[in-house]
Amino acid sequence: MSKLTDVPKRILIGRALRSDKLGETLLPKRIALPVFASDPLSSVAYAPGEVLLVLSVAGASAYAFSPWIAVAVVVLMFTVVASYRQNVHAYPSGGGDYEVATTNLGPRAGLTVASALLVDYVLTVAVSISSGIENLGSAIPFVVEHKTLCAIAVIVLLTLMNLRGVKESGKLFAIPTYVFVTGVFLLLIWGAFRGLVLGDTMKAPTADLTLHAEQGGLAGFALVFLLLRAFSSGCAALTGVEAISNGVPAFRKPKSKNAGTTLAFMGGLAVTMFCGIIVLALATNVHMAENPAKDLLDNGTPVGAGFTQEPVISQVAAAVFGGGSLPFVVLAAATALVLFLAANTAYNGFPLLGSILAQDRYLPRQLHTRGDRLAFSNGIVLLAGAAAVLVYLYDADSTKLIQLYIVGVFVSFTLSQVGMVRHWNRHLAAEKDPAKRRRMHRSRAINAFGATFTGLVLTVVLLTKFTHGAWVALLGMVIFFVTMSAIRRHYDRVADELAADDTPDDGVVRPSRVHSLVLVSKVHKPTLRALNYAKLMRSDTLEAVSVDVDPADTRALRDEWERRGIEVPLKVLASPYREITRPIIDHVKSLRRQSPRDAVSVYIPEYVVGHWYEHLLHNQSALRLKGRLLFTPGVMVTSVPWQLDSSEAAKLRARKRAEWNAPGAVRRGPVTQPKKEKPASQSKKDKAAAKP
Amino acid sequence: MSKLTDVPKRILIGRALRSDKLGETLLPKRIALPVFASDPLSSVAYAPGEVLLVLSVAGASAYAFSPWIAVAVVVLMFTVVASYRQNVHAYPSGGGDYEVATTNLGPRAGLTVASALLVDYVLTVAVSISSGIENLGSAIPFVVEHKTLCAIAVIVLLTLMNLRGVKESGKLFAIPTYVFVTGVFLLLIWGAFRGLVLGDTMKAPTADLTLHAEQGGLAGFALVFLLLRAFSSGCAALTGVEAISNGVPAFRKPKSKNAGTTLAFMGGLAVTMFCGIIVLALATNVHMAENPAKDLLDNGTPVGAGFTQEPVISQVAAAVFGGGSLPFVVLAAATALVLFLAANTAYNGFPLLGSILAQDRYLPRQLHTRGDRLAFSNGIVLLAGAAAVLVYLYDADSTKLIQLYIVGVFVSFTLSQVGMVRHWNRHLAAEKDPAKRRRMHRSRAINAFGATFTGLVLTVVLLTKFTHGAWVALLGMVIFFVTMSAIRRHYDRVADELAADDTPDDGVVRPSRVHSLVLVSKVHKPTLRALNYAKLMRSDTLEAVSVDVDPADTRALRDEWERRGIEVPLKVLASPYREITRPIIDHVKSLRRQSPRDAVSVYIPEYVVGHWYEHLLHNQSALRLKGRLLFTPGVMVTSVPWQLDSSEAAKLRARKRAEWNAPGAVRRGPVTQPKKEKPASQSKKDKAAAKP
Repeated sequence: MSKLTDVPKRILIGRALRSDKLGETLLPKRIALPVFASDPLSSVAYAPGEVLLVLSVAGASAYAFSPWIAVAVVVLMFTVVASYRQNVHAYPSGGGDYEVATTNLGPRAGLTVASALLVDYVLTVAVSISSGIENLGSAIPFVVEHKTLCAIAVIVLLTLMNLRGVKESGKLFAIPTYVFVTGVFLLLIWGAFRGLVLGDTMKAPTADLTLHAEQGGLAGFALVFLLLRAFSSGCAALTGVEAISNGVPAFRKPKSKNAGTTLAFMGGLAVTMFCGIIVLALATNVHMAENPAKDLLDNGTPVGAGFTQEPVISQVAAAVFGGGSLPFVVLAAATALVLFLAANTAYNGFPLLGSILAQDRYLPRQLHTRGDRLAFSNGIVLLAGAAAVLVYLYDADSTKLIQLYIVGVFVSFTLSQVGMVRHWNRHLAAEKDPAKRRRMHRSRAINAFGATFTGLVLTVVLLTKFTHGAWVALLGMVIFFVTMSAIRRHYDRVADELAADDTPDDGVVRPSRVHSLVLVSKVHKPTLRALNYAKLMRSDTLEAVSVDVDPADTRALRDEWERRGIEVPLKVLASPYREITRPIIDHVKSLRRQSPRDAVSVYIPEYVVGHWYEHLLHNQSALRLKGRLLFTPGVMVTSVPWQLDSSEAAKLRARKRAEWNAPGAVRRGPVTQPKKEKPASQSKKDKAAAKP
Repeated sequence: MSKLTDVPKRILIGRALRSDKLGETLLPKRIALPVFASDPLSSVAYAPGEVLLVLSVAGASAYAFSPWIAVAVVVLMFTVVASYRQNVHAYPSGGGDYEVATTNLGPRAGLTVASALLVDYVLTVAVSISSGIENLGSAIPFVVEHKTLCAIAVIVLLTLMNLRGVKESGKLFAIPTYVFVTGVFLLLIWGAFRGLVLGDTMKAPTADLTLHAEQGGLAGFALVFLLLRAFSSGCAALTGVEAISNGVPAFRKPKSKNAGTTLAFMGGLAVTMFCGIIVLALATNVHMAENPAKDLLDNGTPVGAGFTQEPVISQVAAAVFGGGSLPFVVLAAATALVLFLAANTAYNGFPLLGSILAQDRYLPRQLHTRGDRLAFSNGIVLLAGAAAVLVYLYDADSTKLIQLYIVGVFVSFTLSQVGMVRHWNRHLAAEKDPAKRRRMHRSRAINAFGATFTGLVLTVVLLTKFTHGAWVALLGMVIFFVTMSAIRRHYDRVADELAADDTPDDGVVRPSRVHSLVLVSKVHKPTLRALNYAKLMRSDTLEAVSVDVDPADTRALRDEWERRGIEVPLKVLASPYREITRPIIDHVKSLRRQSPRDAVSVYIPEYVVGHWYEHLLHNQSALRLKGRLLFTPGVMVTSVPWQLDSSEAAKLRARKRAEWNAPGAVRRGPVTQPKKEKPASQSKKDKAAAKP
């Protein structure tokens, strides 16, 4: 009767809305690079230093291994980048690792990846901000003397910005990122120039210190273990690579191709910067230790607890540009800024992932709809709170926090690559075209190599870092996993409970008559409105009900009722204990007992107020009554609002809230999503169901 | 049509309810005494010591004045008791000082008294518990080493007990109170016996210490000021006397007579104990100082900060019974217990006063109805929180807290006695019978003397204690006064806004047609129920509305709609931003624009859940939508509940909550209150209005 007439109105409403909001715009590659790559590029600020720190355990001689470790990290980076280029072509909908794992390995694997990513986001905030503070502190000493305080202040600042809904502008990201990249490249080029062409000796601030080897003269298995530890620390440079796979919809067409190109570009930049910094660090004789207070010696005596160990980038910059010079300060500032922006990516990624998880019913449903300000706010606050706790517990020490960081990332990498292998297996079983098959074989080989390599790294990371803190990350993952499973089970159970039968009655009682009650306390405008509305609805019986709390008020009510000649009969319920709720509940229940097949409709006038404190003064009894009525079967409760003058203020506030921009809007791209790929079994079911 | 038929049902419902609840029982005098008098009687534990403390400023020689001060306190006590006996006969409804002041002096005076009483309750808790801890500490040293901690622990314990709603059993009060009174009397008698008959020398633990006089050799004006200060400290013994005037309804008949007798008895006990303790303290050479660390000297050297100054009762008990003996410990325990019970009276009095104030619209309305558990809980928590803050700020030192205590009490006394004088004036103007006139003259004289005396004491207290802490209490009173005035103004303003006109339309638009919408997301039982109910209500148009958040879900919904052949037309609203609220609000607004004189009724299925966390998973979008809909004029919102299985648990919890006993129920007496006396002008208006 009305299906066809829906279409014109829908198009009308749809177009109207879309033109109202100036919406998200698609990103060109030059803007997409900073937006998505700020996390991996900024990792370059701490990853090289981590390598040197671990190697220092065996003394300065072990630094000679660092180029080899850099090479290993570079190979891993190329592998991961190549693997993810397959991802972005195969899954252009932006589901990322979670989608790949769920589709190919099943829901439990997907949930594992989701838990790992959630933990990862928290640690991105903690590590990036701590490292940013450390880099900033090389230019501003005050900051580093109050590391934890400043770090938590930055977390609070980012939280407030995101709660308010600052639109994540692509340009906002581009500038600091390009300044940082340019700065590092200038550093490398100038350092190479001075060292190779001019022949200068550049000395890092720690060049004259010596390292006390905690375990000097390592050989054999112990040395290999140490090298593996150093390597797994260097893998911190890979964090954030997967973000592009989540953001494919935001690219301009051809989306997958552009995403893949950006990935490659990012990988290239990252490895260049990583290797360059390691080389310069060795050339300028940087000395860094895990326990600088004990193991760094100045003329044989330990430097003690007052010594601040600057990050490797800042030491190299001091050697190449000169400590305190303009390029030095600019680079320190840009590094800190890029790291803070990298933390901001987590604020945007967290709700995005939450929305996808909510769609699959692993998180409360209201996270799924866009622009749900309150739900996003809760997620953002949770993220910030968890990060702040970690920062506090670990004294904003990026080295300690990185030990927790890498686990989640590599769980995600490994499962996603394994999933891709299964993806190609599945497609190879169905595909006949030899050209396509060749490409699929190649892709599968890349993903298989990637899966093996990242799986190995994951094992190494677990082995070497478990006691150093990785167990905390694993614990976090387990907590997320268990909670999300429980939420899913709840929703499934409720869905079963609510599923309508196919019986003629649909499993639902069909009442035949309805009795209406209007709750009144005195005759004023809200009461009269409620009576008018109730009379409109033409129920089988209608009566007004009042509770005798104060005899004087009741008498006045009756008198006024008579005076105005209101036709609706007024029933007064006694209330010896001056309660409101119980007499009404009892009355409703007695009505239901008399006529069990009839429904009861209760009309309650409700004041719409403007300020939060006014809620304390109005509607409390009504709310409590409503709550109790809802437990009674066969009852529906109608609120008849009366907007007080003060509610205008609240209306304006609600309108403003509705125009709030959800974080991460830029990354999601516009709303019309291409259909997600379904596993073979499910798409067959869908095809069967869709037949008319 | 139905006014006469209300009566039988009302009687029926009324009787049924009253027999359900086993209700409050009326109190015989022997139980009423402990219930109402525990506060004044327990003041005896600290008031004598306060007198000695203040006098010690002028050295031990000033102790000689203490008997005179005791006499002054006794006279004041008799005056106040005699005055309040007039109160209980003239105002037997239990309104207390607030009612007397409001009725006779106007609403502002009444509000002042109310503010003073509220501050008084907070300080009763703080002072009684601190003093109880000090007395307990004389038997258990651990307690006194962690005074603040133990005091706050006791506050928390009492709060939990009251939140849970332990029925204030009269017997629970009686035993510790009688043990305390008996114990003190035994102390006095045995002390008198040993001292006068046996001729023993009883030495208090501080007998051998000497006092360093901070201002030795005082004379003239300064000495008088000091004596006045000591006197006003001794007035702490009067706190709580007015409680009986609040509790007259709880006595057995003849209520006023019994209340008056109990007052007299209580006064007698209190003065006897007060004087007896002062005498014994002097006889056993108790030395107490305001700053014991500096001013108590042991062989010329100050005792220092480690010294614990025991309360006077425990020092006297140590001298008479022997420190550590069984009677000593029993008395210490009974004293502490009685003080904790006195604090509990505040937990019961606060909500009682709150209920009366709410009836006059000075506090949120829901405090007025009995058994409103949530409102009472809020009040109890507020009281406990304020008391805990004070205890923390003043280190649980009862001496410092008492400086704040006395102001509120005497504001209340003075205003109440002045009000009584006006009361008698008014009655004398109307009364002709000479016998009654003579009695009224006598009562007026008593109240006038009481008013003068308490007014003087109030001035003395303000002068002597303002800088010592009384300003804090005054600040609290001002805050309460301002808040309550603001609440009253708000209610008055809203009442004006809502008052129905006398125009034919009653100032309210009368819509002629109604359009119903049912919100659906998928076809399950709650949806079917909502559709059934909406169909019952027979509105002019009815349609089902869904928002297209997920194309797959919408397609499934349409298919199911067709398959079941549901007659209600289904309209799908587009939502490019995956919001639910805005498309629906826009649709409703467009309906209203098309037909401005019609009402719109929106049916929203609502899940009734069992556990708090389930609220996070359901209904969130519905709640937000409801909130926005209520701002739109001409709209009513109907919740059609679906009780999930888990809601059974919540139903049971709600039933249990309904059977909760409100604190202070014992004191209020049963519900049928005699009519409150109205001021002359208002009762004339009532008589005029009541004419048919």
